[in-house]
Amino acid sequence: MSVTAAKGFEAAGVAAGLKSSGGLDLALVVNRGPLANAAAVFTSNRSKANPIIWSQQVIAGGTVSAIVLNSGGANCFTGSQGFQVTHSTAEAVGAALSVGAGDVLVCSTGLIGDQLPLDKVLAGVTIAAASLGDHGEHASEAIMTTDSVPKRSIKRGNGYTVGGMAKGAGMLAPGLATMLVVITTDVVLSSAELDIALRSATRVSFDRLDSDGCMSTNDQVSLLASGASGVEPRLEAFTEVLTAVCLDLAEQLQGDAEGASHDIRIEVIGALTEDDAVEVGRSVARNNLFKAAVFGNDPNWGRVLAAIGTTDAAFDPYDVDVAMNGVRVCHGGAPDRPRAEVDLTPRRMHLQIDLRVGDATATILTNDLTHDYVHENSAYAS
Amino acid sequence: MSVTAAKGFEAAGVAAGLKSSGGLDLALVVNRGPLANAAAVFTSNRSKANPIIWSQQVIAGGTVSAIVLNSGGANCFTGSQGFQVTHSTAEAVGAALSVGAGDVLVCSTGLIGDQLPLDKVLAGVTIAAASLGDHGEHASEAIMTTDSVPKRSIKRGNGYTVGGMAKGAGMLAPGLATMLVVITTDVVLSSAELDIALRSATRVSFDRLDSDGCMSTNDQVSLLASGASGVEPRLEAFTEVLTAVCLDLAEQLQGDAEGASHDIRIEVIGALTEDDAVEVGRSVARNNLFKAAVFGNDPNWGRVLAAIGTTDAAFDPYDVDVAMNGVRVCHGGAPDRPRAEVDLTPRRMHLQIDLRVGDATATILTNDLTHDYVHENSAYAS
Repeated sequence: MSVTAAKGFEAAGVAAGLKSSGGLDLALVVNRGPLANAAAVFTSNRSKANPIIWSQQVIAGGTVSAIVLNSGGANCFTGSQGFQVTHSTAEAVGAALSVGAGDVLVCSTGLIGDQLPLDKVLAGVTIAAASLGDHGEHASEAIMTTDSVPKRSIKRGNGYTVGGMAKGAGMLAPGLATMLVVITTDVVLSSAELDIALRSATRVSFDRLDSDGCMSTNDQVSLLASGASGVEPRLEAFTEVLTAVCLDLAEQLQGDAEGASHDIRIEVIGALTEDDAVEVGRSVARNNLFKAAVFGNDPNWGRVLAAIGTTDAAFDPYDVDVAMNGVRVCHGGAPDRPRAEVDLTPRRMHLQIDLRVGDATATILTNDLTHDYVHENSAYAS
Repeated sequence: MSVTAAKGFEAAGVAAGLKSSGGLDLALVVNRGPLANAAAVFTSNRSKANPIIWSQQVIAGGTVSAIVLNSGGANCFTGSQGFQVTHSTAEAVGAALSVGAGDVLVCSTGLIGDQLPLDKVLAGVTIAAASLGDHGEHASEAIMTTDSVPKRSIKRGNGYTVGGMAKGAGMLAPGLATMLVVITTDVVLSSAELDIALRSATRVSFDRLDSDGCMSTNDQVSLLASGASGVEPRLEAFTEVLTAVCLDLAEQLQGDAEGASHDIRIEVIGALTEDDAVEVGRSVARNNLFKAAVFGNDPNWGRVLAAIGTTDAAFDPYDVDVAMNGVRVCHGGAPDRPRAEVDLTPRRMHLQIDLRVGDATATILTNDLTHDYVHENSAYAS
């Protein structure tokens, strides 16, 4: 299911030998139409991987017939040889499916700076094209890297379906664990409409997931529409369903973040603007001292205020409230309830910051900084 | 020595009972003149501790007779009661030394959000004032928190001395381990001249030390001049000596950063502007994935390029060189020498990034991200 839940889609997940483990490492998702409309958003990192450079050209055309994704290598900073691998991969998919290579999106994830073995990728494409079917599960497994579980989501609209798969151990800007997302739907909407809906949905979901502050070179979120349901929904209604899928996948990514022992929901309220709320939430989400304190079940609200103080958001340091798991530990910038009343042992933590200057709000999802995070990320390439 | 190396200064370091360990926790440095000129720079965090708010008023007057520093509590986000503690401390110092309270700088370091016990602070001030002498060593020990060793430096100019002490486990914007620095000198220079020299020196030393990306609420670097040498140096010559003291102390802070196992020197060359070089160096210094890789002795240069890509600096991702400990692992944005040639086992690591677009350079000092960092910062308040 997942990417094959919507009508008009087939998928495959195969072992191409890119992962040393021998596991599934190449996924193919095909849009059988009748429409081949699509939208995509990409990492804002200026150091972009070859598949990003390729896919940005593809999406500019507004038509996408297939997307091929590999784990086992990011194909980033691999020079002209690396770009040739991406190009040849798209051509192989195009030939196997009798579509244009220029309508094939490519995604890669894994270590930066290593060449992908082209022969293995091409052989994998051949096998994948021959095994297409209702195999959304296989596809979602083939894109995993340090993920411990595949991430899938399906939501139904009025007569149509939106389904997706995701991989990654962080945010829209994660680290080694690049976030890749493919969402399919059978609605009848133009590529321009899909683009509006996708940007609206990612803005409040993947863009607000900030596990470790590190931005990948390979992030890509793609949305493909087949039109096979024959249903043409209102854009707002579709955007709502799409946003629900994105939020569901974002929370699954947060829950599986590398080495994390807490899923932290930072809710900023009382901000002057939504941008201010996002800036404050993100600043706290990226504060290593706060994140390490949460790992130690330590309700160290001083570190929250110190992080807020580094932003440009409108606020008065002496008129801020901070609550942790429902206990207001800071009121008006001074100590309120005793730290000892806060229980941080559950995996889910709710941090609420009230800036008390307006009505805008935003929620940022993040994780704590743990021994396991350091371990996983120090041992990755070795 | 340290702050008592220059003529005209006395100091004391005493145990006031603020630290539960019973160790030295209150330092007093007194300028006996004939001049009482001074300059100071403060944290740019908008969430400022009470001693910062106080000291900014003091330094505006341009005259400083003494500085009192305590560990065992940051006196930050402690409401009006907390500000009263700072005010009363300055008044007690003023009364004990027969100087105006408005000429007394105050510094605090420790946990945010806890009240300092005023009675203990005042009793400590009385003892310190009674034990003033050539006790720069005691003073440098009394300001330690998680520091494992005191930091001191002395440099001689032509007929004059610059001496200093520092504490902190990070950068000018560290975390719980606020950076406090006191530098004394016996030159004859005005407060305005001292201000120019201090800003010039900190810009290329403490401002370029970025251990964990977290900015304290309590950072303060103060420079006091007694004029007791009778020497009036050229400002450039004095600034050179002062910068040497600041760099020496900054490197000592880096070498004692919390939990660190590598001292990383990030040298950015070939930048279009110095600001670009600083932005690139700081972005890499704050990248948790890069820092964790160094901890694991893993020369993961892809994470360096991914961090550079998040900046606004002028550069072409496909024309960048990266060298680690002298081995060029990336050339023109593609793999160069094999990773295996890089030996990251020594504590000192040199990362050189050549942006190849200009002649500007900057060096940022940072540390790796380790299990011990997570441990120390998760266990601090508990």
